[in-house]
Amino acid sequence: MSVYKINEDLAKERQKCNFDIQELTHIIDGGKHKTEQRRFIEEKVLKTGAHEDLVPDECLSLKERYENAVKKSQMYSDLVKNELLAFTGLENFGTPILRRLADAFFKEISPFLLHLGMFVPTIMGQCTPEQQAKWLPPALNLEIFGTYAQTELGHGTFIRGLETTATYDPSTEEFILHSPTLTAYKWWGGGLGKTANHCIVVAQLYTQGKCYGVHTFIVQIRDLETHEPLRGVKVGEVGPKLGFNTADNGFLGFDNYRIPRDHMLMKNAQVLKDGTYKKLANAKLTYGTMVFVRVTLVSDSAFNLAKAATIAVRYSAVRRQSEAKPGAPEPQILDYPTQQHKLFICISSALAMQLTANWLWATFSKYLNEMRKGNVDNLPELHALSSCLKSVSTSDASFLIEQCRFACGGHGYMTSSRLPHIYAFVVATRTYEGDYTVLLLQTARFLVKAWEVAESGVDVSPTVSYLNRVNKHKELVWDNSMEGLIRYLEVVAEGKISHCVKNIREKMKTGMSYDDAWLLTTNQLVPAAEAHCRAVLMKVYHQESKRLTADSSLNLQKVIDQLVQLYIIFWSLEKTGDLLRYTSISEKDIDELQNRYEDLLASIRPNAVGLVDAFDIRDEILQSTLGAYDGRVYERLMEEALKTPLNAESVNSSFHKYMKRESKL
Amino acid sequence: MSVYKINEDLAKERQKCNFDIQELTHIIDGGKHKTEQRRFIEEKVLKTGAHEDLVPDECLSLKERYENAVKKSQMYSDLVKNELLAFTGLENFGTPILRRLADAFFKEISPFLLHLGMFVPTIMGQCTPEQQAKWLPPALNLEIFGTYAQTELGHGTFIRGLETTATYDPSTEEFILHSPTLTAYKWWGGGLGKTANHCIVVAQLYTQGKCYGVHTFIVQIRDLETHEPLRGVKVGEVGPKLGFNTADNGFLGFDNYRIPRDHMLMKNAQVLKDGTYKKLANAKLTYGTMVFVRVTLVSDSAFNLAKAATIAVRYSAVRRQSEAKPGAPEPQILDYPTQQHKLFICISSALAMQLTANWLWATFSKYLNEMRKGNVDNLPELHALSSCLKSVSTSDASFLIEQCRFACGGHGYMTSSRLPHIYAFVVATRTYEGDYTVLLLQTARFLVKAWEVAESGVDVSPTVSYLNRVNKHKELVWDNSMEGLIRYLEVVAEGKISHCVKNIREKMKTGMSYDDAWLLTTNQLVPAAEAHCRAVLMKVYHQESKRLTADSSLNLQKVIDQLVQLYIIFWSLEKTGDLLRYTSISEKDIDELQNRYEDLLASIRPNAVGLVDAFDIRDEILQSTLGAYDGRVYERLMEEALKTPLNAESVNSSFHKYMKRESKL
Repeated sequence: MSVYKINEDLAKERQKCNFDIQELTHIIDGGKHKTEQRRFIEEKVLKTGAHEDLVPDECLSLKERYENAVKKSQMYSDLVKNELLAFTGLENFGTPILRRLADAFFKEISPFLLHLGMFVPTIMGQCTPEQQAKWLPPALNLEIFGTYAQTELGHGTFIRGLETTATYDPSTEEFILHSPTLTAYKWWGGGLGKTANHCIVVAQLYTQGKCYGVHTFIVQIRDLETHEPLRGVKVGEVGPKLGFNTADNGFLGFDNYRIPRDHMLMKNAQVLKDGTYKKLANAKLTYGTMVFVRVTLVSDSAFNLAKAATIAVRYSAVRRQSEAKPGAPEPQILDYPTQQHKLFICISSALAMQLTANWLWATFSKYLNEMRKGNVDNLPELHALSSCLKSVSTSDASFLIEQCRFACGGHGYMTSSRLPHIYAFVVATRTYEGDYTVLLLQTARFLVKAWEVAESGVDVSPTVSYLNRVNKHKELVWDNSMEGLIRYLEVVAEGKISHCVKNIREKMKTGMSYDDAWLLTTNQLVPAAEAHCRAVLMKVYHQESKRLTADSSLNLQKVIDQLVQLYIIFWSLEKTGDLLRYTSISEKDIDELQNRYEDLLASIRPNAVGLVDAFDIRDEILQSTLGAYDGRVYERLMEEALKTPLNAESVNSSFHKYMKRESKL
Repeated sequence: MSVYKINEDLAKERQKCNFDIQELTHIIDGGKHKTEQRRFIEEKVLKTGAHEDLVPDECLSLKERYENAVKKSQMYSDLVKNELLAFTGLENFGTPILRRLADAFFKEISPFLLHLGMFVPTIMGQCTPEQQAKWLPPALNLEIFGTYAQTELGHGTFIRGLETTATYDPSTEEFILHSPTLTAYKWWGGGLGKTANHCIVVAQLYTQGKCYGVHTFIVQIRDLETHEPLRGVKVGEVGPKLGFNTADNGFLGFDNYRIPRDHMLMKNAQVLKDGTYKKLANAKLTYGTMVFVRVTLVSDSAFNLAKAATIAVRYSAVRRQSEAKPGAPEPQILDYPTQQHKLFICISSALAMQLTANWLWATFSKYLNEMRKGNVDNLPELHALSSCLKSVSTSDASFLIEQCRFACGGHGYMTSSRLPHIYAFVVATRTYEGDYTVLLLQTARFLVKAWEVAESGVDVSPTVSYLNRVNKHKELVWDNSMEGLIRYLEVVAEGKISHCVKNIREKMKTGMSYDDAWLLTTNQLVPAAEAHCRAVLMKVYHQESKRLTADSSLNLQKVIDQLVQLYIIFWSLEKTGDLLRYTSISEKDIDELQNRYEDLLASIRPNAVGLVDAFDIRDEILQSTLGAYDGRVYERLMEEALKTPLNAESVNSSFHKYMKRESKL
């Protein structure tokens, strides 16, 4: 960890911790063996020191940052290929362990990310065996660098609106790629600006005079020798962003650019030599990738929130401020209930999101087998579930990470705290792969349909089974057990969905079309879908934590139970208005929940540092002046400050250039 | 404005607008004459073109950004001194107009900001006439550059905890400044790192063996000729931050550094030659500066939120996405009720904050005269008011600016949208000059005291007069007029304060001390203070908008009334839980409020672009690819992208250095 002496306050916190930190780490990792494997890999990679920067990345120009990131990507990829593939297997390309390690190398992101994260998987998933044989070996061997270009300057979430065309010319057996307008330019592809020489391009397929909608094509965009853009290809970097500044996100336009016919990815659909279009597989299967990416984003939210919580909790144990009582010494800020209120929900939410991501992945894997057998009945539920979990997790994590930053006061504003980077990363995921609002409305579509099915007396699928109990809720006697509270949050979700349906029907009675009535109800449909998602999160967190700690020591069971209770009561109190509207909760019940919440804060307090230690995020990966294991907060802040190039010279040239005056002083 | 053709959709929006945009601009500026004056100054400064960058600032290294900012600061200061002082008068140093213009020069901030914003005002406010005569002319003439250093590495909001000492030595008639520990280093001072050669230092005053608490000193830290730090002074830059990256925020430590006795600012207290300490004025008067700074921050929140709303609303009129109805063309995203819900509250909140800042300033000025006559009775109320308004405005503005960014989808993530800069700037103000939570708890102290006074039957001061009606509320019949809703939000505030008092008293009955009981109630005291602040904001917004539009045209009155209603109903719906707990609101009332809210969105929709046009923020000041007056969104995005230095070369050197491979492809 560190050669320095541990800060005294932090050392005391660790003595106070009453559960076995290792035991919790194993649960979070998914077993003792997995913890050991992760630590082995971390040790192997980090002992190279390849991740160390002499100058903080944010001090450099954007160009220098990019160049530094390419250099590191090469080192990182070589390490992965030479040292780790044998150990973890090819299937671990892009696994949480490797992505966690990437954080040590890149404060922001690698320009190779989409090569490994989208280019390679798309070849695996959408190419014919012949195409795979051609493209996969050079891609895995980093002989070619690829990325993925779907979004256009004028078109995002609504894929059918994409403008780039791929028109088949049977006379030469080629597709002609073309960007008819400025808004048709591809925009955002990570690594597309300067790094990639190949690209998966999503375009509207035209053949025999007819449009068949969006399809994917593999396109070479730069010369393999000179790296110059090929004729007919306009490619460049999109410029500075809130985050991801080392990813050379790019733009890409085509001027009647020709590619061979077999560069269309032909696993699911083909264009024959004569131009005949043939559909082969159920396109719905490609939803699988989408669900996979969303699970990944929920898991990313969990890990990044865990980082932020680690930083803010350790800092709050070291930082002392104000007088809680006249004349008394300045207390650790972690002793303030307002600080506990800001931070403990972050610890608990990180755990909730991680357990839910794991559960979602397990659920998806189970369904996937059925889908491969042709049964796609579960797809709508899975899609609705992954949509709302992606929205709510990325949104909650963004909000809570920023709350952790606020909890660190001014020092959270220093990039050396790492909190600004973490926020910039996670808040992007709130928008990409499906915007927050759009995805919740997709979940709402599913919920309204399910409500109508349940209304007709037919039972609906597991995650919405609470709808089967329509209109039987208000009479329930208030039950403040965790199971009771979860049931009541389901009642809230049901009440909100039901309210939306009523609203839509009333509007339609006035002659409005369903589409218009839906549109005018969207401001209520979004919170209805959110309420559904909150109920799912609570239920899964409660159930999975019970299952995973069934054989744990009593003290660990107890602290986990406290975290789960904190989560459920926190959200019950946040949603008091909904509970008052849709359930029989009383004023007294609310006061009691508030008191229990305050008691939980006090109970969790002595274990707070132990809980974030259990996330087991190494200093090299956390890269935070405020959050290091040893708590040398102020020393590290100063050490980092001294690294900034402005401090390499005692006087900056601009004094003599612009400021110097005669003064009579 | 622009030589380009206006985007067709934007042009149509402007045709639809049914009120006189100029008329609203005059109201926001405070009169037609003020609008004209502002425009004259803007024109004069901006026609120099001094604000134009060839390369986006964020592409440069931190050092280059600093040097660029110093260069521009010099140009900007000269312009202000030579061209504008005669016109606007010295008293306009730091006025909204000049600060608005500064936005055109600096995407982030000038390293001279604290020279003009804190160093000069402190000399004016805390120096004796002799000291002023010595320091003010060279400071105003930019012969010396100063800043303000209060916060230390280990000490922020709690000023009494500062460690830097100033010990008087009567044998040489000097103060010895010293930083006894690392945590005593000054940290954050804007312009302190490399720019300033003088500094106001806040330190614990020791004389004749006794500590007299914090006092201010003017300290030269660098040589005027060479700019080298003086012996005994350790000064440098703190390193990269989330924002403010051109401000060379600095650290400063002293090693028994001696300054003459008369460098203590002696207006309010003196140390005589023999070391005798003499208190002269009521220290409470210095609260005035604090209140002034807080009003400024409320006004900054308003202006920056207006910028964000301008960007997001114009973009939403240009951007088209998805299908609202099958087969129909992609609608402007401003037509989605979910988008209106995100954006119209931003327009209204910007107006609410601006009118409230103006009102607060007027209230303060009125009290100031009384205070100068020795009557400081109103100070607690003023302090409580400015504390909560600063907290809630900076917090709301941060949240809503980020909401504007979300509403712009992926493109909001580009720094060329300007939204990331606006957020980074405003979110810092949520922490500095008093942290959000700490300030709300100060307001809560005042509220609890006022509640107890009212309980004793004595009437309390105007902004909390609603407490005089204790316990008479529940019986009120629901009244959904604006006045009724404001009154109900006051009832909520009263209910929450009352609940806190009850809570504290109950805890004390168990033997707990008042301080402990207070501490354990802080998580309820914060929302109580927030509820109070919301009621004040609504009331002031409602009353001031009525007053200011009394003579306006009917259409303007109508649209302003819609904005005020939107604001009040928005917050009533947000606080449904509180209304259900503390008032007689019914389910039906809530539904009705929701319907009125949706109707208001539809009514405001045709005027949305007109409303943000009325903020009258010139393109050069807005500096946004998404928000320019002409709506050339996609063209500007591409033009900005092409300016990034990575695009100056078609191939980056790192390809040949790190990536090139033999490929069999």
